[in-house]
Amino acid sequence: MKMKFNRRKFIKSTTLISAGAIVMPLKNYAEMKKGILPKEGLKLSFEPYNLQLKHVFTLANSSRSTTPVMLTKIEFQGITGYGEASMPPYLGESQETAAKFLSELDLGQFSDPFRMDEILEYVDNSRLGNTAAKASIDIALHDLTGKIMGQPWHKIWGFSAESTPDTSFTIGIDTPEVVKQKVKEAAEFNILKVKLGRENDKEMIETIRSVSAAPLCVDVNQGWTDKKMALEMIFWLKEKGIEFVEQPLPKESIDDIAWLTQNSPLPIIADEAVQRLCDVQATLGIYSGINIKLMKCTGMREAHQMINLARANQMKVMIGCMTETSCAISAAAQLSPKVDWADLDGNLLISNDRFDGVKIANGKITLNNLPGIGIRPL
Amino acid sequence: MKMKFNRRKFIKSTTLISAGAIVMPLKNYAEMKKGILPKEGLKLSFEPYNLQLKHVFTLANSSRSTTPVMLTKIEFQGITGYGEASMPPYLGESQETAAKFLSELDLGQFSDPFRMDEILEYVDNSRLGNTAAKASIDIALHDLTGKIMGQPWHKIWGFSAESTPDTSFTIGIDTPEVVKQKVKEAAEFNILKVKLGRENDKEMIETIRSVSAAPLCVDVNQGWTDKKMALEMIFWLKEKGIEFVEQPLPKESIDDIAWLTQNSPLPIIADEAVQRLCDVQATLGIYSGINIKLMKCTGMREAHQMINLARANQMKVMIGCMTETSCAISAAAQLSPKVDWADLDGNLLISNDRFDGVKIANGKITLNNLPGIGIRPL
Repeated sequence: MKMKFNRRKFIKSTTLISAGAIVMPLKNYAEMKKGILPKEGLKLSFEPYNLQLKHVFTLANSSRSTTPVMLTKIEFQGITGYGEASMPPYLGESQETAAKFLSELDLGQFSDPFRMDEILEYVDNSRLGNTAAKASIDIALHDLTGKIMGQPWHKIWGFSAESTPDTSFTIGIDTPEVVKQKVKEAAEFNILKVKLGRENDKEMIETIRSVSAAPLCVDVNQGWTDKKMALEMIFWLKEKGIEFVEQPLPKESIDDIAWLTQNSPLPIIADEAVQRLCDVQATLGIYSGINIKLMKCTGMREAHQMINLARANQMKVMIGCMTETSCAISAAAQLSPKVDWADLDGNLLISNDRFDGVKIANGKITLNNLPGIGIRPL
Repeated sequence: MKMKFNRRKFIKSTTLISAGAIVMPLKNYAEMKKGILPKEGLKLSFEPYNLQLKHVFTLANSSRSTTPVMLTKIEFQGITGYGEASMPPYLGESQETAAKFLSELDLGQFSDPFRMDEILEYVDNSRLGNTAAKASIDIALHDLTGKIMGQPWHKIWGFSAESTPDTSFTIGIDTPEVVKQKVKEAAEFNILKVKLGRENDKEMIETIRSVSAAPLCVDVNQGWTDKKMALEMIFWLKEKGIEFVEQPLPKESIDDIAWLTQNSPLPIIADEAVQRLCDVQATLGIYSGINIKLMKCTGMREAHQMINLARANQMKVMIGCMTETSCAISAAAQLSPKVDWADLDGNLLISNDRFDGVKIANGKITLNNLPGIGIRPL
C-alpha cells in the first residue's frame, strides 16, 4: 500500500516537472516549422484493453461484464497524446475492426498535429463507419495539441470550467433489492439515469423512489412502440420527478416522435437518432434536444460543432458516453461546460482504469487544469 | 530612409527574440493559476487613430478619404494582445462612442483571458450595439491567448493555412479613365469587386471589361429595387464573368430576395441582412450565402460560430472587412481557410498601417506562423 502511494506520488511529481519540459518540444516544434529541424511525422500506436465492469451491466436487450476498448497514442516531438475507442459489442465495432482500421492509417505523412481539418478528413474518408476508432485519433490529437499549447481544451474553447453540469449516474436494471442497494451507493450523485423499455418500467421507478427522491432521467433506448402509451408513461414519469426522456420510440418513427415531443411535458432527447453533425438538422422540430457521444460522432472536434449547431437552433444538448476509461471521459468532459446535461459515468463503472483524469465532486463534473484532455496515465 | 529601415529591422529582431520570452509569462501564468503569484486582472487600453485612404472611396451613397478606428490593447502577464474597431461613419459608431463604450468596461475583474465565453458575454451585455468596439476586445483577447499558447488561431482552430482563398480587391466608383487605371494597378488580384447600385452599373462593368478579363464579384449594397430588373441584370452580369452578387435588393424585401435567389444563375449573398449569429437562420432558403464581417458580428469568436452554422446548412460563406489596419484584417484572415470567398483588402487601401501582418501573395491570402492573430506592431 505504501509502495503504491509512493509510486503514484513519484508519477505526480515527474508530471509536474514536465510542465516546464513542455518548453523543449515547443522549441523543437518552432525550429521544425522554421526548417532548422527535419520534418517528423505523427507516430500512432495502439493497444487493445478490456475494461472490467464493477457490476454486470444490463441494457434493454443485453448484459455484459467487460467492454473492449482500444487505447491509442500519437507521439510527436517527444510529446504523447492519448486517445481511446470504446466498443460495446452492440455498436458493431471490435478490437479487431479497430486494429484493422488504425493499422491501415498512415499518420506519418502529417508533420503538423494542428492540421486537424486535414488529418481528420483523411481519417474519416479512409473507411466508412469505425466511428469509435476515428474518435480515438481525434482524442489523441486534441490531447497532443493541447499539451503543445500548454492548455486544456475547455480553456482553448473559451469555456468557464465551473459551468460544468452534474453527471447522471446509471442505475442498471436488476432485482429490486439490488437496485435499492445501487441507488443508496449512488448517494453522491445529484441525478440518476434509469434504462427503461421493459415490462417492469413502472416497478423500476417505484423501486428507486422507495429509497431516493433524487432527480432522475430515463433512457428508453427505442424500447416503447406506441406513441399514446409513451405519452401516458411520460406524464406518469413527470409526476415521479423525471427530468427528461431519451429516445422513447424507434428512431424511424419520426412522425410519432414529433407528435410526442409536441405533447410531452418533458424534453425528448434524440440518442440513437443522432450520430454525427449531419444528423442534427433532421432532429429540428422532431426532438427537444440531442445526446452527443464521442464514440458515435468521431470525436471532440465534431462534437464541438454539433453543440454549436444545436445551440444555434435552441436545442437542448446532452453529452453521453460508453463504458470507457478516464481518457475518453475526460475528453468529453472538456465540452461539458456547454451542455445542459451530462452522462459521463463510464469510467466510474470500471475497476481497471488506466488514467487519472477529470473527477466528479459532489456529483458535479470537475475539470482540472492539465493541458490537453486533462489526464495522466496510471 | 536608412534610419527608418534600421528602426524597422530593430523592431523585427526584438520581436523575434520575444518568441523565446513567451516562456516567461507562460510560467507566470501557470504559477498564478497555482496561487503562487497573486491574481492579476486584464488591462485594457485604447487609442483613436485615423486611417488615411490612398484613394477617395466612393460607395453608393457617400465618399470619404479617411476612416476613424480605435486601436485596443489588452495586457496580461507581460503579453500584449492587439485589437481594432473600424468605424466607417455610415455604420453609426465613432471614436467617441467606442471610447465611451470601452472606458465603461471593467476587464480588470477578469484574471484569465481564456474565459472568452464569460468575458465576451459581459462585454456584449454591457451595452446594445457597439459591435465594432466589441470586436476590438474579441480580437485583442484572441491575439493575447494565441500568444500565451504560442500558436496562431488558424492553427488552434485546426485549419490548413494554404486553404485560404484569393481576396477580392475593390474598384471604387469613379470616372472611366480612373477606373481603368485602378483595374490595371490591381493586376495582382485574381478577383475584383465592384460596387454597383447606380445609374451607370453596366457602364462600370463594361469599362472594367475593356481592360481586364479577371473574375469579378459585385456588391449592390441594396441599391436595386425591382426584382425583375435585378434578375435581368444578374443574367447580364453572368455573361460578363461575374461570380456572385451581394445584397442586390433591400434586406427588408425578403420575398423578392428569395425569388431572386431561386431564379438567379449566380449566388446571392446576404450582407446588410446578416450581422450576427442570430441572423443566420433567417437567411436559410432566402440567400445562397452570407458575408461575415468582424466589425458587425462582434469578432472572431462569433464569426467562427457563424461559419460553422452556415456550413452545416450548406450555405456559401464570404468574409469581408471595413477599411482597417492589418490588425483586424489579419484577425479575419485567421478564419479565411474556411470560407468560399474573401474580401480582405481593407489594409491595402490605407497609407498609414500600424501593423505588419497577413500578406497577399499573387492575390491569395497568405497566413504567417506568428502566434495570436499574426501581427507585429510597426
